[in-house]
Amino acid sequence: MNLTLSLSRAIAVFPEREAVVDGQFAATYQQLGERVSALCHALLGMNVVTGEVVGIIAPNGHEFLEAYYACAVLGLVLNPINFRLSAREIGGILEDSDARILVAHTDFTNLVVDSIAQPFALKLKEIVWFGSGQRTQLEACAHDYENLIAGNAGKQLPECAVEGSDLAHLYYTSGTTGKSKGVMLTQENVTFHALASVAELSLTDSDTWAHIGPMFHLLDAWAVFACTWAGARHTFAPYFKADEVLLLIEQQKVTITALVPTMLNAMLNEPDIEKRDLTSLRLLLTAGSPIAPEVVKKAVNIFGCDYWQFYGMTETSPFLTISKPKAHMANWSTDRLLNVVSRTGRTFIGVELKIVRPDGSEVEHNDRDVGEIIVRGPSVTQGYWRQPAATANAIENGWLHTGDLAVIDEEGYVNIVDRKKDMIITGGENVYSTEVEYVLYEHPSIVECAVFGIPDDQWGETVKAVVVPKPGVKISEGELIAFVKERLASYKAPRSIEFAEELPKTGSGKIYKKGLREKYWQSLERQVH
Amino acid sequence: MNLTLSLSRAIAVFPEREAVVDGQFAATYQQLGERVSALCHALLGMNVVTGEVVGIIAPNGHEFLEAYYACAVLGLVLNPINFRLSAREIGGILEDSDARILVAHTDFTNLVVDSIAQPFALKLKEIVWFGSGQRTQLEACAHDYENLIAGNAGKQLPECAVEGSDLAHLYYTSGTTGKSKGVMLTQENVTFHALASVAELSLTDSDTWAHIGPMFHLLDAWAVFACTWAGARHTFAPYFKADEVLLLIEQQKVTITALVPTMLNAMLNEPDIEKRDLTSLRLLLTAGSPIAPEVVKKAVNIFGCDYWQFYGMTETSPFLTISKPKAHMANWSTDRLLNVVSRTGRTFIGVELKIVRPDGSEVEHNDRDVGEIIVRGPSVTQGYWRQPAATANAIENGWLHTGDLAVIDEEGYVNIVDRKKDMIITGGENVYSTEVEYVLYEHPSIVECAVFGIPDDQWGETVKAVVVPKPGVKISEGELIAFVKERLASYKAPRSIEFAEELPKTGSGKIYKKGLREKYWQSLERQVH
Repeated sequence: MNLTLSLSRAIAVFPEREAVVDGQFAATYQQLGERVSALCHALLGMNVVTGEVVGIIAPNGHEFLEAYYACAVLGLVLNPINFRLSAREIGGILEDSDARILVAHTDFTNLVVDSIAQPFALKLKEIVWFGSGQRTQLEACAHDYENLIAGNAGKQLPECAVEGSDLAHLYYTSGTTGKSKGVMLTQENVTFHALASVAELSLTDSDTWAHIGPMFHLLDAWAVFACTWAGARHTFAPYFKADEVLLLIEQQKVTITALVPTMLNAMLNEPDIEKRDLTSLRLLLTAGSPIAPEVVKKAVNIFGCDYWQFYGMTETSPFLTISKPKAHMANWSTDRLLNVVSRTGRTFIGVELKIVRPDGSEVEHNDRDVGEIIVRGPSVTQGYWRQPAATANAIENGWLHTGDLAVIDEEGYVNIVDRKKDMIITGGENVYSTEVEYVLYEHPSIVECAVFGIPDDQWGETVKAVVVPKPGVKISEGELIAFVKERLASYKAPRSIEFAEELPKTGSGKIYKKGLREKYWQSLERQVH
Repeated sequence: MNLTLSLSRAIAVFPEREAVVDGQFAATYQQLGERVSALCHALLGMNVVTGEVVGIIAPNGHEFLEAYYACAVLGLVLNPINFRLSAREIGGILEDSDARILVAHTDFTNLVVDSIAQPFALKLKEIVWFGSGQRTQLEACAHDYENLIAGNAGKQLPECAVEGSDLAHLYYTSGTTGKSKGVMLTQENVTFHALASVAELSLTDSDTWAHIGPMFHLLDAWAVFACTWAGARHTFAPYFKADEVLLLIEQQKVTITALVPTMLNAMLNEPDIEKRDLTSLRLLLTAGSPIAPEVVKKAVNIFGCDYWQFYGMTETSPFLTISKPKAHMANWSTDRLLNVVSRTGRTFIGVELKIVRPDGSEVEHNDRDVGEIIVRGPSVTQGYWRQPAATANAIENGWLHTGDLAVIDEEGYVNIVDRKKDMIITGGENVYSTEVEYVLYEHPSIVECAVFGIPDDQWGETVKAVVVPKPGVKISEGELIAFVKERLASYKAPRSIEFAEELPKTGSGKIYKKGLREKYWQSLERQVH
């Protein structure tokens, strides 16, 4: 089993179907196959060996898709790099992965140069540049992406002799949970997940997918393989800009895409949204972090299409649940269905999922008992690149421990209440940050918010919120705290609220809670040590 | 990767959904899981060892489904036995497979007794009986299926420690192509195929599948796993009877099923068909042998639902193509679409398929050049049980040679023109039997027909037809030959036509051409030797 199955079938069954539209660039599946083939031969010309790591740092675009496939065909391990990381972090990744080849867009020339200048022992020998920006002379041999494609045109796709157990991707997890680790995904992990996604989402050759979430992240990258397999069409937003994304959906008649809630929120707050014809959308997905029911309500009203939530992680290729309703819910009221789709979701096809107490027993399906989500299945990672201790820590008896705390209802729909590490314990009471955030999102003046615990001598921790109000709107700390207390137990309400113009985000666009929390905890550490 | 994934998800996500309705018997997925669990523990009580073969001989029903799953969970190899075989053939299979346990329905008590009485070295030690018929005292230890279930009630489903590469099924191929061989299918073969089927057919928890084709055959058995995974409902026709099957569709509101063309033909010729409400059907599939476009036309008119053709073989779990139209064909005329769905179909998701000339090069996509279909992919068998020579003969460089001759059109839709062994060479000209059969099916008086070559001193072979006319209708040989000659080149028309009341069928219900042909070739052999 390997990823090439998806490309070879698209070429065989949908050769004339438009595969890719990327600004002025367009290609059928036949043509995409030819470009992937040329890129394969270019890489073979650099004497690549099965299993070696190829880095890529680039915005969303057809070259990213081509790189995913060329590496898959040759059995190379693609390592997509988060371009929001610092040069030092990227240097660390390049050292850890042993990448000899880097595919890089000129938007990141300086970042690449600075990464290489870091005091790491890099094996980097070849850089394949694309983009119209400036390229800097470096010690590594420079290639031009399009020259390589042109120079290897007309060659047959190399015979794929890749096994399911061969490594396909190396994703370094974003910094929300400590030191960056390389998540290893095999060809089988990703292939199986792609097929499962075609099944769960009924992807077909009438679909057009918009790559809006960054392709270096699994929020979006799984769709490279799933949508190709189904013969769907790929379109791209190089970077997330709410107004441009809305225009892309209109112009390319996008039928389906996946966003992080912060992106969806930004789009819903975009004044232009009313002007756009978004009727082509059949299904809008969000993933990456829990979403406030209030935001779902707004989205369903404005987009007028189906909305489902996904939950997953890099370690699981990524999806573990989906909030797709069941057949027998067809005649439920809109409000009741809205509650279903706003949940984290039910088990994704191909996954085994349990919510367990610390002693390993499963919690009741009563929507109240909180446990940790543990999972297993063909799309779950074998572990972390060269980190056996981290692997052993995450995977116990074949079950991956997600670190996410959740409840499950009698229909089997999971709802995440918090990251294990984000749960606040104040005066001996557990407070789940999402619950407080959801209430804040109900306030009409709030664009974004984050709730977390800060150290407190008396209570251990107290609840803190950072809130982004709508531009030009004034709200007081007291008013907001009162708003929460009207809706939740007093101890769950923030003790203090900070106002900000924006919140820090991770590479995939999620709110970076760790960054917000750090300053409070650092001062504590200084106090303690 | 293993088949238990499909059951455990159905139990987790659809516990209250009706899983099985079989006459008076009904069970939710929760209850089905409990019965499978009990059967597992019953088998463990017989000291089963991973990898050992369990035979089953039974009509369609929930027990068959339970046996498929119990063996899958325990890593046992289920060997479904064709109950239309002779006692001698079944004895041969039981010897070849080394089965120690046999699950048997009392409809086949005599057949089981006679099989065991054959001069083979059997390892059979335990027989699990079900059904209300008579049971005969045998040397092997007799168990009662329902007693075993009751005696092991309330036990947890055993932890499944089965790998994708473990053997799951052993299907002995029906006798159309020489000595019976045990086709080995792994857990990965069947699991991957099930997921691919959910994707291609958009199976969901709103579907009801009717097991009409025999569950000992892959025409139907794949649906055990695919439909369970999707949370669909299983209903059963114990044996194929056209009138009863039509009633089942009406009463159980069946949404989807797969038939062999001979079954469909029988249903279309059933006088009761007009009385039945068949509106629940959303998709009718046929597979197992090519279908005359004339029959498809009739079926689409009468059933009023989508119709797609499947092509596959036991060695490939089974499906290789599907005649599902592409998105851009949505505005094609009914007639043009009818031509598409009447073809053998385009490559099934997860399969790699080529049509090659004897030198291995691919034929043009011009719907004219004939080549052999070769395939590869995760659902393709590793080979035949204890028959390395047969395996090496069928699989070359990783590609399984199907022995089916086909053309392919510019949209990538394959059409099978004949079995390699069935192609007729008359006076140096190739005649593909299906082409002649399709023309005969256009004649309003014909119910069924088969065309094959018979030995001829002058021409090498000549074209022979055996025809079943409608009851009470008289047609002459000359009239039918003239009918064909008006539509095809003269050399393709039958030289002689035999009339029959029915045609012999294989275990899955396909027309048994080899049986028809034998008498002509046997007389030749007598002449020659």
